[in-house]
Amino acid sequence: MNKYSVGILGASGYAGRELCGLVLRHPALALAFAAANERRGERARVAGREVAFVAPDDARLDAADLVFTALPHGAAAPWVARARAAGARVVDLSADLRPGSASEPAPYGLPELTRPTLAGAEVVANPGCYPTAILLAIAPLLVRGLVEPGATIQVAAASGVSGAGLAPRAELMFGEVTEDYRAYAVGNTHRHVAEMTAVARSLGADVDLLFTPHLLPVARGILATITVPLVAPLADPLAPWREAYGAEPFIELSTEPPTLRDVVRRNVVRISAHAAAGVRRPTLVVLAALDNLVKGAAGQAVQNANLLLGIEEPMGLPA
Amino acid sequence: MNKYSVGILGASGYAGRELCGLVLRHPALALAFAAANERRGERARVAGREVAFVAPDDARLDAADLVFTALPHGAAAPWVARARAAGARVVDLSADLRPGSASEPAPYGLPELTRPTLAGAEVVANPGCYPTAILLAIAPLLVRGLVEPGATIQVAAASGVSGAGLAPRAELMFGEVTEDYRAYAVGNTHRHVAEMTAVARSLGADVDLLFTPHLLPVARGILATITVPLVAPLADPLAPWREAYGAEPFIELSTEPPTLRDVVRRNVVRISAHAAAGVRRPTLVVLAALDNLVKGAAGQAVQNANLLLGIEEPMGLPA
Amino acid sequence: MNKYSVGILGASGYAGRELCGLVLRHPALALAFAAANERRGERARVAGREVAFVAPDDARLDAADLVFTALPHGAAAPWVARARAAGARVVDLSADLRPGSASEPAPYGLPELTRPTLAGAEVVANPGCYPTAILLAIAPLLVRGLVEPGATIQVAAASGVSGAGLAPRAELMFGEVTEDYRAYAVGNTHRHVAEMTAVARSLGADVDLLFTPHLLPVARGILATITVPLVAPLADPLAPWREAYGAEPFIELSTEPPTLRDVVRRNVVRISAHAAAGVRRPTLVVLAALDNLVKGAAGQAVQNANLLLGIEEPMGLPA
Amino acid sequence: MNKYSVGILGASGYAGRELCGLVLRHPALALAFAAANERRGERARVAGREVAFVAPDDARLDAADLVFTALPHGAAAPWVARARAAGARVVDLSADLRPGSASEPAPYGLPELTRPTLAGAEVVANPGCYPTAILLAIAPLLVRGLVEPGATIQVAAASGVSGAGLAPRAELMFGEVTEDYRAYAVGNTHRHVAEMTAVARSLGADVDLLFTPHLLPVARGILATITVPLVAPLADPLAPWREAYGAEPFIELSTEPPTLRDVVRRNVVRISAHAAAGVRRPTLVVLAALDNLVKGAAGQAVQNANLLLGIEEPMGLPA
Repeated sequence: MNKYSVGILGASGYAGRELCGLVLRHPALALAFAAANERRGERARVAGREVAFVAPDDARLDAADLVFTALPHGAAAPWVARARAAGARVVDLSADLRPGSASEPAPYGLPELTRPTLAGAEVVANPGCYPTAILLAIAPLLVRGLVEPGATIQVAAASGVSGAGLAPRAELMFGEVTEDYRAYAVGNTHRHVAEMTAVARSLGADVDLLFTPHLLPVARGILATITVPLVAPLADPLAPWREAYGAEPFIELSTEPPTLRDVVRRNVVRISAHAAAGVRRPTLVVLAALDNLVKGAAGQAVQNANLLLGIEEPMGLPA
Repeated sequence: MNKYSVGILGASGYAGRELCGLVLRHPALALAFAAANERRGERARVAGREVAFVAPDDARLDAADLVFTALPHGAAAPWVARARAAGARVVDLSADLRPGSASEPAPYGLPELTRPTLAGAEVVANPGCYPTAILLAIAPLLVRGLVEPGATIQVAAASGVSGAGLAPRAELMFGEVTEDYRAYAVGNTHRHVAEMTAVARSLGADVDLLFTPHLLPVARGILATITVPLVAPLADPLAPWREAYGAEPFIELSTEPPTLRDVVRRNVVRISAHAAAGVRRPTLVVLAALDNLVKGAAGQAVQNANLLLGIEEPMGLPA
Repeated sequence: MNKYSVGILGASGYAGRELCGLVLRHPALALAFAAANERRGERARVAGREVAFVAPDDARLDAADLVFTALPHGAAAPWVARARAAGARVVDLSADLRPGSASEPAPYGLPELTRPTLAGAEVVANPGCYPTAILLAIAPLLVRGLVEPGATIQVAAASGVSGAGLAPRAELMFGEVTEDYRAYAVGNTHRHVAEMTAVARSLGADVDLLFTPHLLPVARGILATITVPLVAPLADPLAPWREAYGAEPFIELSTEPPTLRDVVRRNVVRISAHAAAGVRRPTLVVLAALDNLVKGAAGQAVQNANLLLGIEEPMGLPA
Repeated sequence: MNKYSVGILGASGYAGRELCGLVLRHPALALAFAAANERRGERARVAGREVAFVAPDDARLDAADLVFTALPHGAAAPWVARARAAGARVVDLSADLRPGSASEPAPYGLPELTRPTLAGAEVVANPGCYPTAILLAIAPLLVRGLVEPGATIQVAAASGVSGAGLAPRAELMFGEVTEDYRAYAVGNTHRHVAEMTAVARSLGADVDLLFTPHLLPVARGILATITVPLVAPLADPLAPWREAYGAEPFIELSTEPPTLRDVVRRNVVRISAHAAAGVRRPTLVVLAALDNLVKGAAGQAVQNANLLLGIEEPMGLPA
C-alpha cells in the first residue's frame, strides 16, 4: 500500500509517544519525523521500535502529508501555521484551535458528532480528553431535547496522571500520588468547561455544566460520572445512545458501569446510563470511560487523520 | 489511671483491627477480649503488640464495661442484645441500628451533630463511613436553611478498598483493582442513601440526595465531592462551617481542596467549600475527606465510647 | 486460512483468560471451547469479544486439535490423559508434567532451549514463569562452561500478583498488597527450584541454584536478578547470549537493565548482563524480565502449540 | 521539661519533612528553624502543624544545640562546618562524612553497632538507608566469625521511591513508576557499597559485598534479601541476632519473613534468617526490612541526636 507520510511535533510527551506507536503500527501511515525539542538527538523505544527525536526546526514539514501537533497549549498555534504553510494537513492536539479557546475555532474533531464537517478539512482541533468522554456521553440527550431546559449537568470525573503530561512536577511524583486522591480546578474553573459548554450549546441545548475533575493514582484512563436532569423519565435508559450511535465502531454501550480496565489501550468510549432512584426530579446517571491517551488524545487524532486523508476511519486503531 | 474494660466482637476485619490498635494505645481503655469467629485461636500483630482472637461465644461480655460490635450488617443486632443483657454498653459499627435501617434506631453516634443525645446512652449506632463525611459536610448548610428547598444534593464519592472489608473477593484482589476505577451502586441504590436521607431530614431539610460511590485503587480514605444548590450565593463560602464547628477537635476547615493524604490515620474530617463559577443557579461545591477506618469507623467508635463512658471525648484519638 | 480447533481447560484464571485472548486473535487458531468449572455458565469479555465458559465435563475434547490445560498443579494430569485419549495434542501449563515434578516428564516446552524435542511431540510441559526467565538467562553461560563448577547461582526474583492466580485470598487483596513487598518460599523451598535445577543439570552444568522469590505490588511482570560466579571474566558480557540467541524472535538483549514496562503484554524475555565491580571472584549480574502471563505462561503455551501443530512459531504472538 | 533547641537544614525533602515531624512530636526537642533553600518563605503542614521554611543563610545556627543537615551529598560538608563553628552539635544525613566517602569520616551513627563511639561526639555521620538495613542484618554474623572467609555476601535490595528524594525527575513520576520495577546501579556500582564494605571490614570481616538495588512502586520501605556463605550450618538460625541485639529497642527478630508493612512509620529494623535448603555450601538467607525515612534516615538521626544530647536514646521515636 502507498503510505501517507506523517510527522509529529511534540513526540516525547505522553500523547506524542502514543502517537508514535499508533503511526508505527498503522498500515497506511509512515512516520516522516518525530520532533521533540528537549529530547532532540535522543532515541526512545516505542512499540518495539526505535524512534529518533529531531529538533522541531529540523523537521521536514514539507515532506509530510499530515502533521500532528502535540504541543503545550499556547505553543501549538504558530506550528500549525508553519505546517499549513508547508502544505501539510494538521491535527492539533492542543486547546489552541478549539471552541471555547480560539476566537475562530477549527473544525472540532469529534467524529461521532462532527463527522460531516471534517471530510474536507485541512486543520482539525482534536478535542480534550474530558470533553471527548463527556460530550459523547451527553450529546444523545442534548440533541433529542431530553434534558430539562436551563438545568445544570453535573460531572465528577477522574483521570489518571498521564492526563497531566510527562513534564516533571513534584506533586506528580510517585511518592506523592500513590494512595492519594484529590479534586482540582474546583469551582468549575477547568479549561475544559468552556470547551464543553461551547460544543453543548452548539448542539442547541440550554444547559449549564458543572465540572469537577479529580486526580487518580493510575497511569491512564478517565471515568466521568454525569448526572442529567430529564424532562421526563426514560423507559429504556440506553435508548438515546443506541439510536445515536448504532453503528459507531468506537462507542460501546453497556448495561453495567464501565471501568477503566474496559477501555485502556483501546480507541473507544464506553457508556452506561442508569435512572436515579429515590429523587423527585427524573434524573439519569450516565457513566463514560475512555483511555485519555487513546480515544482521549492520540487515538482520536489518528481517527481524525484518517478522515482528513480519506483513509477508512477505523484503520490502525485498537478497538 | 483506672481503666475501663472494653471488648471487640469482629476484631479481625479492617474496622476491628483498627479498633484493636486504638484500644491498645488508649490511656483509659483496656482490651478485655478480641473475638473473631473465623480466626479464633489465631494471633495477629496490631500496634506492635500481639492480639489473640477468641471465639465470640467465649468472649466475657459480662466483664466488659463496653463492647464494640464490628460485625456484618444483619449479624450485629443479636450480639448487641447479648452484650446489653450482660450489662455492657455498646457501640455498634454495623448498619443494624442506624436510621434508615432499623425500625427503632439507636442514638446516632455522630457527636459533632448529635452529642446531646449520646451522653446518657447505653447503645449507640456508629455511622457509616460515607454518611460521616457527607453529613458533617452538609449539615451546616441544612440547619441554616441555606439549601434550595426541594433541591437534590449530589454526591460523587470515592473510597479506598478497605471500605469493602477484608473478606476475600475476586474483584478486590490486587490484580483486579490496581490501575482501575469504577462506580458501584449506581442509580442511588447504596444502603447509605437511606441513612443519610433520614438524618438529613431529621435536621429539618427538604432535600433529596443523589449518591454515586466509586472504588479507588488505594487502601484507605474517602473523598466526597458534593454539590449543593443554594437559596443565595454565600459571601464567605466557609462561614457556615466555621460557625457550626468552631471548636470541634476532629473537624478541619481548609481553603484548599482536602486530599486523602491530609486525613489518613487521623480521626478527622477535612472540609473545603467553593462557589461554582459559570452556572446560573448559585451552587456550592463542598469537599470532605476522612479516613474510612478512623473517623469513618473505628476512631469515631472510640469517640462515641469515650462519650458513653464519661471519658474526655478526644482521648486516645489521633487528631 | 483453515484454522486449527483448540480448547482451553481452566479458562477463567489469569493464564486461561490470557490464553483466550491470544487464541481469539490468532490467525490460525479457532476457540473450540473455554471450560471453567467454578464459572460454568458465565460469560466474560476477553479481547473485545464475549467468551462463554462451559463445564469441563461438557468440553468437546474430541473436537479439538489441541487442548491447553491451565489447571491447578495436581489437577491437570488426569485431564491431560483425557484430552490425549480423545485424540488431542496437549500443552499443559501446570507443573504436573515438568522435570522436577513428574517421574516421567513430558518434553519441556522452552523452545529457545528445547526446540528439537518439540516438533513431533503430542504433549508438552509448558515451563513455569520463573524458570522461563531464569533458564533462558543462564543457559548460554551453562552450556558454554563459563560458570565456576560447583558454584551457587543466586536468584532474587520478583513477580506481580497475577503469578499467584485469581482465586481469592485475603493476603492478595488490594488493601494488603499495595505499598507492601515481601519475600516468600524463603530458604530455597519454592517448587520452581527443582524444575530449574533439573533443567540446568540436564544442560551438563554442575551448579546449585539458590532462589528467593518476592511479591511485587504490580499486576504482571517478573524481574529476575541473577548472580553467576564465572571461571574467568568476560571481555564482552553479552557475547554468550548473542551467540546463543542470535535470531530468536522472542529474546531481546539489552545493555540497559530491563524493566517490567519493557516486556508486559509481549511474548519476550529481555536480558542484560553486567560485570560485578569490586569483588574478588569474577561474577556476572544477569537481569531477565518477562510478562509472567505471556512469555511466562500463555504466550509460551501458544508458541508451543504453534510448534506442535506445525504453524510458524511466532504466529499470533505479540513481540 | 527543658527542651533542646534543634534546627534542620534541608527541611523540605523527604528526610527533612520526616525530621520536622519527629522533632515537633519529640518531648525534649524544640524546632529552632527549618531551612529549605528552594522553598524559602513557604509553609507546609507537617504532623498537623504548620512549618515555615527559612533560607539557610537566615537560619540561626548559633541558637541551636544541635543541627540536622539533610542536604544533598557534596553540599552538606560546608554546612556541617558552619554549624560546628556556631557551636552546634551536628547529625549529618548526607554521605559526606561517612566511611567510604570521607577521607576522615565522622563517627558512624549506627547506635546498635557503634554506640560507644557516639556518646561524646560532636558530629555524627548518619548511615545510609540501605547500609542501616544491611549492616544491622549481617554484623552479628561478621563479628562472630561465622562467615566463610573471603566469601561474597550478596544483597538484592528494593526500596520505595522516597529513597530517591523529592526533586522532580521524569523517571520518578507516578505514570512511569506504577506497575514497573527495575534494578539500578547494577554491577556493584552504588555509592553504598563503599560505605558498607568499609564498615564491614572495620568489624574485622574479610568479605566482599555484591549489592543490587531495585526501585519499588511503593512510597517508602526497604527490604534487603541477603545471602551469606557460612563456615558451618547454624543449629538455630536466629541465635546470632538474639545474642547480639537482645535488649535493643529498635531491632525486631522474626521467624517469618518481614515485610514493608511491618516496619513503615516505625524506627525499627526487622530481621529474619533462614537456612538455604538444597545447596552444597551452608548458606543463610537473611531478610531485613525498615522504613527508609525513619530507621533509614530521620528516625535514626533523632536516635543519634538523643545520644549526642544525653537524652534517653528511644525518646520521641515510634517503635
